[in-house]
Amino acid sequence: MVTTARKNPLSARRLAPKGDLNAPACPSRGVLEHVTSRWGVLILVALTEGTHRFSQLRRTVGGVSEKMLSQTLQHLEADGFVTRTVHPVIPPHVDYALTPLGEEVALRVGDLAGWIEDNLGRVMVAREKVAARGPRRTPH
Amino acid sequence: MVTTARKNPLSARRLAPKGDLNAPACPSRGVLEHVTSRWGVLILVALTEGTHRFSQLRRTVGGVSEKMLSQTLQHLEADGFVTRTVHPVIPPHVDYALTPLGEEVALRVGDLAGWIEDNLGRVMVAREKVAARGPRRTPH
Repeated sequence: MVTTARKNPLSARRLAPKGDLNAPACPSRGVLEHVTSRWGVLILVALTEGTHRFSQLRRTVGGVSEKMLSQTLQHLEADGFVTRTVHPVIPPHVDYALTPLGEEVALRVGDLAGWIEDNLGRVMVAREKVAARGPRRTPH
Repeated sequence: MVTTARKNPLSARRLAPKGDLNAPACPSRGVLEHVTSRWGVLILVALTEGTHRFSQLRRTVGGVSEKMLSQTLQHLEADGFVTRTVHPVIPPHVDYALTPLGEEVALRVGDLAGWIEDNLGRVMVAREKVAARGPRRTPH
């Protein structure tokens, strides 16, 4: 497919379409899911600090199970956001790091995560105000 | 609580803590969930274009059910990100719009969503490369 793309610029554009998150069948929705799942966000943010081993990620990301960490890393690796490097020692030593593509997406995810952490107090105040207004009385 | 906060700056700081998404019990995790769910993302992005009625949002956000749209809007309203304005006509006419707080978070969510749409082609190419390498042969 890459060879075809080189021969024909039109095919190259077809192979690199702009996604449309509002379209149910667009594969961008799968990417969104992988990077915005709770564990996806926290793993990407942790990896912006540098290469981590599995056990280090497990300690950093509070509450993640071994299974969910492994599954989320596999999704992020499959999307090309994370590399998994196996060092040939016994027992095997495996490192996880962001790819250049992963660094780009992690930057956006980190901005959002940082905003939420920094502004949690404002959200908590807003929640109290909304709750004080009582339940809705009209349909949409 | 607001009065107490005004009297005592220490309480004000206690009422507006910085969140920690890596802490399992931190309420920031609930906020993250509301703004990064698939429908949360798409609704926030749609509302950056301006006020919408329920039916307009349903048309814009492909594939969302009435129930999920209603539930997601309620979460976003409860967190103080979205206002719901009921116009006193028959049948009731209800508008949804971002609050100033919602505009701030929607900006970050929109950056991430825009990056995913713009770079879907690169992710698809990366996916093919990773898939061509075959399955993993070592544990983490």
